[in-house]
Amino acid sequence: MQPHVDTIHLGTLPLSQGGVLEDAKLVYATWGRLNSAGTNVVLLPTYYTGTHDSYRPWIGSHSALDPDRWFIISPNLFGNGLSSSPSHAQTPAQRAGFPLVSIRDNIDAQHRLLTEHLGVKSVALAMGWSLGAVQSMHWAAAYPAFIRTVFSICGTASCWPLNRAFLASVRAALAADPAWMDGAYAHDAPPTRGLKAFGRVYCPWAYSSTFFRQALYRTLGFDSIEALLLAWEEEHLAWDACDLMAMLKTWEHADIGSLAGQSASKALANIRAKTIIMPGSCDAYFTAEEARIEGALIPNAEVRVLDSPFGHCAGAPGRFEEETRTIAMTAHALLAMA
Amino acid sequence: MQPHVDTIHLGTLPLSQGGVLEDAKLVYATWGRLNSAGTNVVLLPTYYTGTHDSYRPWIGSHSALDPDRWFIISPNLFGNGLSSSPSHAQTPAQRAGFPLVSIRDNIDAQHRLLTEHLGVKSVALAMGWSLGAVQSMHWAAAYPAFIRTVFSICGTASCWPLNRAFLASVRAALAADPAWMDGAYAHDAPPTRGLKAFGRVYCPWAYSSTFFRQALYRTLGFDSIEALLLAWEEEHLAWDACDLMAMLKTWEHADIGSLAGQSASKALANIRAKTIIMPGSCDAYFTAEEARIEGALIPNAEVRVLDSPFGHCAGAPGRFEEETRTIAMTAHALLAMA
Repeated sequence: MQPHVDTIHLGTLPLSQGGVLEDAKLVYATWGRLNSAGTNVVLLPTYYTGTHDSYRPWIGSHSALDPDRWFIISPNLFGNGLSSSPSHAQTPAQRAGFPLVSIRDNIDAQHRLLTEHLGVKSVALAMGWSLGAVQSMHWAAAYPAFIRTVFSICGTASCWPLNRAFLASVRAALAADPAWMDGAYAHDAPPTRGLKAFGRVYCPWAYSSTFFRQALYRTLGFDSIEALLLAWEEEHLAWDACDLMAMLKTWEHADIGSLAGQSASKALANIRAKTIIMPGSCDAYFTAEEARIEGALIPNAEVRVLDSPFGHCAGAPGRFEEETRTIAMTAHALLAMA
Repeated sequence: MQPHVDTIHLGTLPLSQGGVLEDAKLVYATWGRLNSAGTNVVLLPTYYTGTHDSYRPWIGSHSALDPDRWFIISPNLFGNGLSSSPSHAQTPAQRAGFPLVSIRDNIDAQHRLLTEHLGVKSVALAMGWSLGAVQSMHWAAAYPAFIRTVFSICGTASCWPLNRAFLASVRAALAADPAWMDGAYAHDAPPTRGLKAFGRVYCPWAYSSTFFRQALYRTLGFDSIEALLLAWEEEHLAWDACDLMAMLKTWEHADIGSLAGQSASKALANIRAKTIIMPGSCDAYFTAEEARIEGALIPNAEVRVLDSPFGHCAGAPGRFEEETRTIAMTAHALLAMA
């Protein structure tokens, strides 16, 4: 089912970490129709190297997110190449000049989209994988009365320190290529070596020892680890390096404490939504351990570990059958009580 | 206590993976004196970015490895800058021309050192951290009658697939720097950006989420993750890039199965030594899971997990007090039954 894709122009956005984003554009997709009460909404914020399109496997009459019943909205993260991004912004936000747009800035822009443009009164379920999960948690903490349930998959509310060190490492791999030029390279001279290294450094973090030991990359259609690594190179070559770095900055600065005067525990305690936190059992950077620490601080949250050998990728929409089924059932259960 | 450091010249070494290493030099250190029976030997093969000198914290009258009683031998891994290495070999083994020297090749050269040059009849304990652990296991499988006990710390007998993917990732970080030139760079034009990226990509793999979350890098004297990452950059800048890559190749090709016609289980079953395998509880690349799989295949092995938040680094000689104490006690116990 094709979504309706649209753009809203938000003008000059003041940014929570300082500065502004000029001529801010938020691109979003919707499936289904808003009911008259404005309450049948499922919100799917996008993840790193994803767009609204990446959520398609979760959406359909076969799934929990049935557009016949729900009005599904997927707003694209700033920096992802669809919403305002270094790759197509005008100066001064062009390329290396793109400012830090925080998770909070994303949430607030999305809130304007929902309330001012779409007439949404309340969100039945805010749900997402990875950086989409991060945004769902921020939503529930920033607008507690607006969000009825939350489903956070392979994500945490803040970027924990190991996760930041991991992000510093992929950044270093890209920056090892002098063609990166701190983002000042020309469009036609991208840092291809660095982009490939970025993908290759990222890949082993995304899965697990079991995944590699049992050659589960075969289930993804790859004959060897090298073939898998090459695919990660290719996938990252297709991205604009400045866009990747902009989203990475958003991610590493994710701090739910910023919603409550620097105290993450205060912000988490503020969440009213029935929340299910589903870390992957062997997620190497959004760890189950840290998801549990956060879960214990949310009044109405339950941590349900997704037992999977696919590491962080366990929650990738539609990628793995059993995991996808678990996710659909859980979303269904949350919607039933939303 | 200063060791005696010496070099033996092994001539032209035929290599197990094909080709030869010309004019092979093995640099080794010894502490203490060999007894008349030739049996009071502790063998400490070196690890990645280590030399015999790195083992000093384990050696002394305060420790299990007392040179008054034991004859301690630490042979340097080929490629580590002391034994034959790309950085100082003559053509054709110079720099990028350095061949793949396998763990088996290292073991066999060390065996010649011990038997032909030092008059060793039997090894009481083969012990090492990381790639030193790998070598200890290979020793016990290749020369089962020669090794009485083994202590493998944060290592496995073979390089498991996740570990290989991790190594591919640090290699990619170095190779993202075009100055690397596939190893053909001049001595005075090293790939500094790549070396820094290598260190930075390596670092988050070496510790654990707890280490970063609890800011345990402070126990190492660093105020921030960034300070820690900079230290990893510095440390790797001090290494020759071709030497790093040569040792990395040795590591990723570690395959104990090569000692028994490609069957690792056969090779492990061949080990006669009383063996203690001590994986770090949260080692990200020499995983406890895979250490257990191997341990179950060795007749006289016990797996004792080293409960530590320091990831792979838990076993680094002398770095962490409690871990160092556990290691010393375990070595002591093994030597008591050697």
